[in-house]
Amino acid sequence: MAYPVITIAREYGSGGRIIGQKLAQKLVLPFYDKELISLAAKESGLAEEFIRTVEQKRNLSFLYNLYSNLQMLPASDQVFLAQCQVIREIAEKGPCVIVGRCADYALRERKDCLNVFIHAPLAERIARARDVYGDDASDVENTVLKRDKDRANYYGYFTFQKWSDPHNYHIAIDSGIGLDIAVSLLAELAEHFMEVCPNA
Amino acid sequence: MAYPVITIAREYGSGGRIIGQKLAQKLVLPFYDKELISLAAKESGLAEEFIRTVEQKRNLSFLYNLYSNLQMLPASDQVFLAQCQVIREIAEKGPCVIVGRCADYALRERKDCLNVFIHAPLAERIARARDVYGDDASDVENTVLKRDKDRANYYGYFTFQKWSDPHNYHIAIDSGIGLDIAVSLLAELAEHFMEVCPNA
Repeated sequence: MAYPVITIAREYGSGGRIIGQKLAQKLVLPFYDKELISLAAKESGLAEEFIRTVEQKRNLSFLYNLYSNLQMLPASDQVFLAQCQVIREIAEKGPCVIVGRCADYALRERKDCLNVFIHAPLAERIARARDVYGDDASDVENTVLKRDKDRANYYGYFTFQKWSDPHNYHIAIDSGIGLDIAVSLLAELAEHFMEVCPNA
Repeated sequence: MAYPVITIAREYGSGGRIIGQKLAQKLVLPFYDKELISLAAKESGLAEEFIRTVEQKRNLSFLYNLYSNLQMLPASDQVFLAQCQVIREIAEKGPCVIVGRCADYALRERKDCLNVFIHAPLAERIARARDVYGDDASDVENTVLKRDKDRANYYGYFTFQKWSDPHNYHIAIDSGIGLDIAVSLLAELAEHFMEVCPNA
């Protein structure tokens, strides 16, 4: 079976990472997520902890932007470009599932990429962040909203595209339909994508 | 098999209407599109031709807005409300496929609605509008863009939501993956929706 490279962008608490893992298991494909940070670190020579710090702190407020333009931007751009390079090398090896890291954008030149966006109603995401991810219940709504904002800013800053725009993805799924049915739909699409996609 | 009511919003030229028809055939469900105009006309007592004219002319430019506030708005609101009422009565009868007409919004109180958005890259939509719908080739790009704008304005005006926001839909599909695979995915989702959707 010829599978595409599958990229998954996901709202915080949507279960998109779990969907990606289950999909990779179902299709017997390699799965990449935080491993990318380590690979990118090795590639760029930057310390892993430093990359994590830059990623977590990215916030496009005016003052941060001013500050980052002076201090941080070259480093964060370097991290992003190193991650893009790692993602391209991973995709070059063959079909896989890559969650996050603007992978759809990093692989925009490839025709064999199936790009997925997973979202969910806020209440469900709050419940999953609290009950499954173990986030602090007293501040979980703020955590969910802030993580989304960080991801949207990060994606928008580097890609000049809107993170939640469905036009960036072949399929966008509300995980409220159930994680298993989402995995099942994505597996069916992955199985047919290489035959039917006019651009692949 | 217990199916949901399936609403489909679609960009012009995306093949969303064809997907809706094929899906209705596959699941053996009633299909509603322009028939709604006739039903709404009967419901509201307004002439069918007049409703078509109002719908086609809705354009939220400043001048039109000014004009419509004075002249047309009560009529167009009346048309919209009549259509919403018809859509609710249709849904009350049982599972079906409804294309367009802000049906997802009209049925927002129901938990048994599967809401779908179909989009596609502009080049593919232009080609379909020209080759399948038979639109005038010399002006087809403008036609596609204008019809999208009309639909987005119509949806935004009445629902206060963004037409292409994936959060309004359980699934958003780029029909560039192929109409038949889109139908197949939607059929699979429809078959499981009533069991797995926590809100249904």
